[in-house]
Amino acid sequence: MSELLTLHANPLTREAFAPYGDVIEMQGHEPAPMNQGWGERYADLARVDVADADGEPRICIVRSLPESIPVPLRLIERHPLGSQIFMPLAPQPFLVVVGPAGEVPAREQLEAFVSTGGQGVNYHKGVWHHPMIALDAVTDFITIDRKGPGDNCDEADIPGGGVQVRV
Amino acid sequence: MSELLTLHANPLTREAFAPYGDVIEMQGHEPAPMNQGWGERYADLARVDVADADGEPRICIVRSLPESIPVPLRLIERHPLGSQIFMPLAPQPFLVVVGPAGEVPAREQLEAFVSTGGQGVNYHKGVWHHPMIALDAVTDFITIDRKGPGDNCDEADIPGGGVQVRV
Repeated sequence: MSELLTLHANPLTREAFAPYGDVIEMQGHEPAPMNQGWGERYADLARVDVADADGEPRICIVRSLPESIPVPLRLIERHPLGSQIFMPLAPQPFLVVVGPAGEVPAREQLEAFVSTGGQGVNYHKGVWHHPMIALDAVTDFITIDRKGPGDNCDEADIPGGGVQVRV
Repeated sequence: MSELLTLHANPLTREAFAPYGDVIEMQGHEPAPMNQGWGERYADLARVDVADADGEPRICIVRSLPESIPVPLRLIERHPLGSQIFMPLAPQPFLVVVGPAGEVPAREQLEAFVSTGGQGVNYHKGVWHHPMIALDAVTDFITIDRKGPGDNCDEADIPGGGVQVRV
């Protein structure tokens, strides 16, 4: 049994999250006016990467139950065939835990981020991540991932286990 | 100048909206458990129809300013090359005004719906619609539409003009 490892979640920023995917947010983007002045568009915030020969986008709503800090990690998973967006449908905080694409990462390679509301994430294809962790309340997310044939979810135990996340 | 026509917005339901597109909501769908019991998925709620040879999904956030009832309609538009999802990022009410795909609809063919929060819409390819109408507050939507070459927005005056919407 490994010693307990505590990950401290950092603020979710585009720069820090860039190795793993996109942060979907308005902050730092210049909007374009639209709808005769009644709207503005923050355009092209994430890359949806699902359109291989057999894949197409799938739209779901995922409801996540809140977990208590420190959050013990259960496992990690990846989607080898497509990207995956999670955008909260209310400005609730949530935790994101990720590791590099490729071989199952060592537990020391995992990184944790906290979204403080109004931000979503897009995991790029193959990026290891923990299942979504809601914090304060039941949180609904719209998700955009791949629909199509093939096995698009690999799960793995975290080598050595014993990892928890604090904010 | 035509006589003023008042459209009364009906509740947004999947059945009533089916000729125009999808309603994205949890209600009436059976979720599947996921994430080791910490989540549930309401799967495959809308058809994203953007993947012609040159198209791919585009993810934006659109911020809409609220309008006052009765709302005078300005114009209608359609996207001949792709579907378009609007999902509010907070449970705010909004108005949707649609008309059948094809020739520019007569003003009597327009239909109005009110979403009372927690619902989004997906306009199918070519369906005429008014720009999004927020009601009570500035409302942010995540949108999923088509990115790619070609002219994907036709705008038209409403024949005869003089249409307003009440709830």
